[in-house]
Amino acid sequence: MNHVPLKGIIAYPITPFDQNEQVDLVLFKKLTERLVLSGSHAIAPLGSTGVLPYLNDAEKQAITEACIQQVADRIPTLVGVSNLTTERTIYHAKFAEKAGATAVMIIPMSYWKLTDNEIVRHYDAVASKISIPIMAYNNPATGGVDMSPTLLKRLLEIPNVTMIKESTGDVQRMHLLKRELGEDVAFYNGSNPLALAAFAAGANGWCTAAPNLIPELNLSLYEAVQNNDFGSAQNLFLQQLDLLRFIVNKGLPRAIQAGLNILGEEGGHLRAPLQPLANQEISELNRILREQELVS
Amino acid sequence: MNHVPLKGIIAYPITPFDQNEQVDLVLFKKLTERLVLSGSHAIAPLGSTGVLPYLNDAEKQAITEACIQQVADRIPTLVGVSNLTTERTIYHAKFAEKAGATAVMIIPMSYWKLTDNEIVRHYDAVASKISIPIMAYNNPATGGVDMSPTLLKRLLEIPNVTMIKESTGDVQRMHLLKRELGEDVAFYNGSNPLALAAFAAGANGWCTAAPNLIPELNLSLYEAVQNNDFGSAQNLFLQQLDLLRFIVNKGLPRAIQAGLNILGEEGGHLRAPLQPLANQEISELNRILREQELVS
Amino acid sequence: MNHVPLKGIIAYPITPFDQNEQVDLVLFKKLTERLVLSGSHAIAPLGSTGVLPYLNDAEKQAITEACIQQVADRIPTLVGVSNLTTERTIYHAKFAEKAGATAVMIIPMSYWKLTDNEIVRHYDAVASKISIPIMAYNNPATGGVDMSPTLLKRLLEIPNVTMIKESTGDVQRMHLLKRELGEDVAFYNGSNPLALAAFAAGANGWCTAAPNLIPELNLSLYEAVQNNDFGSAQNLFLQQLDLLRFIVNKGLPRAIQAGLNILGEEGGHLRAPLQPLANQEISELNRILREQELVS
Amino acid sequence: MNHVPLKGIIAYPITPFDQNEQVDLVLFKKLTERLVLSGSHAIAPLGSTGVLPYLNDAEKQAITEACIQQVADRIPTLVGVSNLTTERTIYHAKFAEKAGATAVMIIPMSYWKLTDNEIVRHYDAVASKISIPIMAYNNPATGGVDMSPTLLKRLLEIPNVTMIKESTGDVQRMHLLKRELGEDVAFYNGSNPLALAAFAAGANGWCTAAPNLIPELNLSLYEAVQNNDFGSAQNLFLQQLDLLRFIVNKGLPRAIQAGLNILGEEGGHLRAPLQPLANQEISELNRILREQELVS
Repeated sequence: MNHVPLKGIIAYPITPFDQNEQVDLVLFKKLTERLVLSGSHAIAPLGSTGVLPYLNDAEKQAITEACIQQVADRIPTLVGVSNLTTERTIYHAKFAEKAGATAVMIIPMSYWKLTDNEIVRHYDAVASKISIPIMAYNNPATGGVDMSPTLLKRLLEIPNVTMIKESTGDVQRMHLLKRELGEDVAFYNGSNPLALAAFAAGANGWCTAAPNLIPELNLSLYEAVQNNDFGSAQNLFLQQLDLLRFIVNKGLPRAIQAGLNILGEEGGHLRAPLQPLANQEISELNRILREQELVS
Repeated sequence: MNHVPLKGIIAYPITPFDQNEQVDLVLFKKLTERLVLSGSHAIAPLGSTGVLPYLNDAEKQAITEACIQQVADRIPTLVGVSNLTTERTIYHAKFAEKAGATAVMIIPMSYWKLTDNEIVRHYDAVASKISIPIMAYNNPATGGVDMSPTLLKRLLEIPNVTMIKESTGDVQRMHLLKRELGEDVAFYNGSNPLALAAFAAGANGWCTAAPNLIPELNLSLYEAVQNNDFGSAQNLFLQQLDLLRFIVNKGLPRAIQAGLNILGEEGGHLRAPLQPLANQEISELNRILREQELVS
Repeated sequence: MNHVPLKGIIAYPITPFDQNEQVDLVLFKKLTERLVLSGSHAIAPLGSTGVLPYLNDAEKQAITEACIQQVADRIPTLVGVSNLTTERTIYHAKFAEKAGATAVMIIPMSYWKLTDNEIVRHYDAVASKISIPIMAYNNPATGGVDMSPTLLKRLLEIPNVTMIKESTGDVQRMHLLKRELGEDVAFYNGSNPLALAAFAAGANGWCTAAPNLIPELNLSLYEAVQNNDFGSAQNLFLQQLDLLRFIVNKGLPRAIQAGLNILGEEGGHLRAPLQPLANQEISELNRILREQELVS
Repeated sequence: MNHVPLKGIIAYPITPFDQNEQVDLVLFKKLTERLVLSGSHAIAPLGSTGVLPYLNDAEKQAITEACIQQVADRIPTLVGVSNLTTERTIYHAKFAEKAGATAVMIIPMSYWKLTDNEIVRHYDAVASKISIPIMAYNNPATGGVDMSPTLLKRLLEIPNVTMIKESTGDVQRMHLLKRELGEDVAFYNGSNPLALAAFAAGANGWCTAAPNLIPELNLSLYEAVQNNDFGSAQNLFLQQLDLLRFIVNKGLPRAIQAGLNILGEEGGHLRAPLQPLANQEISELNRILREQELVS
C-alpha cells in the first residue's frame, strides 16, 4: 500500500437528494464525474459537505459504492467513515475498503468529549480491522474535540494512520505539526480561508468543496505553490477568497447546491432540517461567481 | 393535556450496557426504579446522560418503552427524541407519544449550524405530528446552536412547545428569558453548577443526572427554594457543588456509572469509544461521596 | 482596624469633567453627596466608573481628598489606587490612607500579562506600606489577568488583603471562592447583571454605579436578600435588569452621565476619547428610566 | 513626506532599567545601536516591547530623543505615542515629530471599549496636529478593541494615517484587509508566530522584537520572501518558530532581557511588577538559542 496516496486538490462532492429527500445516486455520480473531469487530484465522498451524519447506514454504503464505481481508479478516493460509536466506524471502514476506497477519513465525532486515551483506542480499534491508510481529521468545530499535536503524534504511531487533516482554522497549528511531528509529516488543510497560509506552511493538499464551483482557481493556486511563485499564489488566492468565505459561512451543502444551480448545473435538494439559501444569499453568490466570469 | 407537566427535580437515568456493549434493559429498569423511589419529580430517559446519539433506532425505542412501563404513571416522563434529521425526529416523537410519554425533549442537533428559520421549521414539523408537550432544549455545547431568547419566543408560539431547557451555563440568559418571554415562561435549568443561581432566577425545575447519586441533596435544595430560604439553599448547594462539578467535568455517563459502583450499585458498562474513568478519577469521586457520608 | 469594613451597596461615582475636559471637583462632590443621601452603604471613587486610568496623579489625589471630605465619615470609603507599576500603586495607596480612606481597591492592571508570582509580589509590596484593608479586584476584561481562586487564596494570606471583588461574570466562580477560601470569605460582586445570583451565592456586597440612577431598587434588592425573600429579590432584580444591562453595555461613565442628565441632574462632560452616548442610545435609556417611573 | 516610509524588518528595542528601576538611557542606546548594525530596516521604540505604558511622560520623551539621536537617520524610526487620553496622545505625537521621528505608531488603548466613532475622532484629532505618517495598530489583546477592516478603511481616509499594523493573530484578517482596503494597502504584521503566513498574505513588513536575539534569521526570512522562494521561507521560518513562540508566550520584555543575557549582552533590569524569567524558563531559552548555534 502507498502510505500517503493523496496530494493536491482533494474535492468533496455533495450528497444530493431528490424532492422526497431520498439520496439521488444518479445525480451524485454526475457531480462526481464533473469533479474528476475538472482535474481534481482526489475525490472525498461522505465528508461534511456530503452530509455524512444525516445519512443512514444503507445510504452511506450506496454513496461509497457509487463514488468508487464512477471514479474507476482514475484518481484516488478518500471515503468518510466517521461515526459516534467505534463499532459503526469499524463497520463502515471495512465496507469502504472492500468497496475499493484508496483511503478513509475519520474524525473522532464526539457527543461526550473524548479523552486522549479514548481517541487513541478508537483509531486503534478501527485501524486494526483494515489495511488501507487512514486520514485522522481534526476539526474541533464539528467534531467537538481538539486533537493536540501531541495526540496526533500518538495516532501516527498506529501503522496505517498516515495522514492528518487539520481544520482548526489556526495556521500556527500547522507550523506546530511540522515542529512536533517532523518535517515529513503528511498534513492536509481543511480550512478553505486558510488555503494560501496552509500551503505556505507546507500542506500536502487542500481538502475542499470549492472545486464543485471554481476548480480552475483551486488548481491554479496549487500549481503556483508548486512553482514556488509567492506573487501568483497571492493573487490567485485573493481572487477566490470571497467565494471560499461565502461557502464556509453559509454551510457547504447549502452553498454548493445553490452555486451549482447558478452555474446551470443540477444541484438536487437538501434533506431537512437543512433548507436552501435565501434569495438574498443566492444573489450574493451570483455576484461573487459573476466576478469570476463564471456566470454572465 | 397539561401544558407544563414538569417541575422540580427531573432525573436523568444512564443507559447501561452489558459487557458486549449491548443495551441492558433489565439494569436500566432497575436504575429507573431507584430514581422513582428516591423521590425525583420526573424521569427523563434518552438525554445526554442516556447517550441518546450512540443508540440505534431499535435501542431508542426499547429504552422508551422500558422507562414508561417501569415508571407506570407514578411520575411524569420526558423522553429525548432529538435527531439530526427532521424525519427521524418525527419518527421517534410519534413513537414516544404512542408509548405513553408525558412530554418529549428536543434539541436542534446540528452538524451544519442551522439558521433560525430551519430550527423553527424543524420544531414545527415535529409538533404538528404529536399532541404531547415539547420541551425545547438549548445547549450550544452539545447541540452546536445557541438559540437566542428571540428564537425561543418564536418556538413558544408553536402550540405544544411549552417548556424551555436552558443549558448555556450563563445565568444572565435565564434572566433574559423572563424579560423576553414573560415572567410566566416555564424554563428548566440543565447546567448542574448553576442549580442555585437558576432557582434564584425562577427556574421551574432542574434537569439533572445527580439524583442517580445524591437524590436527597438535590431534593432538599429544591425544597429550600420552595420554602423561600436563601441561607439553607446556599448551604445545601455548596454541599453538593463538588459532586456536580465532578460529574459535569468527567462526562455524565462515565461519572454516574463510576458513582453507582462506588455506592454499591450496579452501573453496567459503557459503549466505546466511551471508557470508564481512570482509577485516580474514581478515587476522587470516592472522596467526594465520602464527604457526603454516602460511603464509608 | 476593621478587617472587613464594607457590605451592602457600594456606590461608584463618576469623575465629571468641565467643558475643557478638566476634572470638575465641585460637581464631583455634589454627585458624591447624592450617593450618600440615597442610602448607599459605601462610596468607591476612582473605579472604572470614575475613569481612574484616564487621570493624572494630581487629579487622582484631588478626587481622593474631595471624596473623603464630602463623605465625612458618614459611611466608609473605598478608594481605587490601581496602577500599572508597583511604585505608583504604593504611592497612591499611601496617599489614600493618609487622606483618611477606609480601604483601598487594587486590580493588578497589566499590559503584559502578569504571572501569579508577580501579582503576589505586587500586592505584598503595596500591603507592606499601608495599614488599611485592601480589596483585591479580579476583572479579566479590564485588568487583563484572571486571578484564580488559588491565587486569591495566596493574596488573602497577606494580612491586610481581606476582601475580594469578583467580576468575571461567572457565578460559578463565586461558588468556588467559598469552596476554596472558606465560607467566611468576604467577597463582593462587581458584575451588575449577576447581582441576584451573586447574593444567592453569598456575596457580602455589590460594587455598582447603578445607585447614581436607581438607588432605591439597588437597596431594596439587598434588603430582600437580607430578609431571606427569594420571591421579592427575583421581582426587584428583574425590574432593574434592563437598566443594569444598559449601563454595562454602553460603558458606565457614558451611561451614568447620560442618565443623570435624563433625571435632571448635572452629569458634566467626558474626557476624550470618550464621547457622549448617541441620541438613539439616550432615547433608549430614557425609555428604561421611564418604565421605572423615574422620569415622566 | 514619504507616505509609507517603512518595510521589511522593523525592530523593537526593549526599554532597560537600572537596578533602581530607573530608565537606563546609556544601555538603551547601546541596544538600539546593535539593532541598527544587525541590518534591521527600521527601529520602533516605545512599543509593547519597550513597556510604553509603564513609563511616565518624561521617560517617554527621553527614550524618544535617545533613539532618534542614536539611529541618526541611518534607517527610519517609528515611535510609539499611544495613550489612553486623546490629549496625551497628541502631546507625545507632537514631541516625536519635533524630535525627528519618521513616523508614529498609535494603538487606540482603551480601558472603556471605544466606539468606532470615538476611535476615528481620536486618530483624527492626533493626525491634524502632526505632519508625519501614522501607523494605526490593531491589537485586541493589548488594546482591548478590535478594529474591523471597515473601521480601518475609515482611518485610512485621514490623510496621514497611511499604514496598518495588524496583530489579531488571525491570518484571514490580513487577507480581508487586502480585499476591503485594496491590494496596495500598506500593512505590517505584528504577530510573530504568523510571520510566514503574513508575508504570504502580502505584508509590507514585520514588526518584531526578535532581532534583539536572532536578526539574521529574521532578515533571511524576509529576503526569501522577496526572492519569491516558498521553500526557503518555510525552512527559515520553522527554524525560528520556537524562539518566536517563546518570546511571545513569556512576554517580550522579560524574554528579550533574558535572551540578551544568555547571548552575553547586557539586558538591564525590569520595572516591577514585571520580574525576570524563572531559572527553568531561562534554561529553555538557552536550549532554543543553542539550537540556533547562537550560544555554545
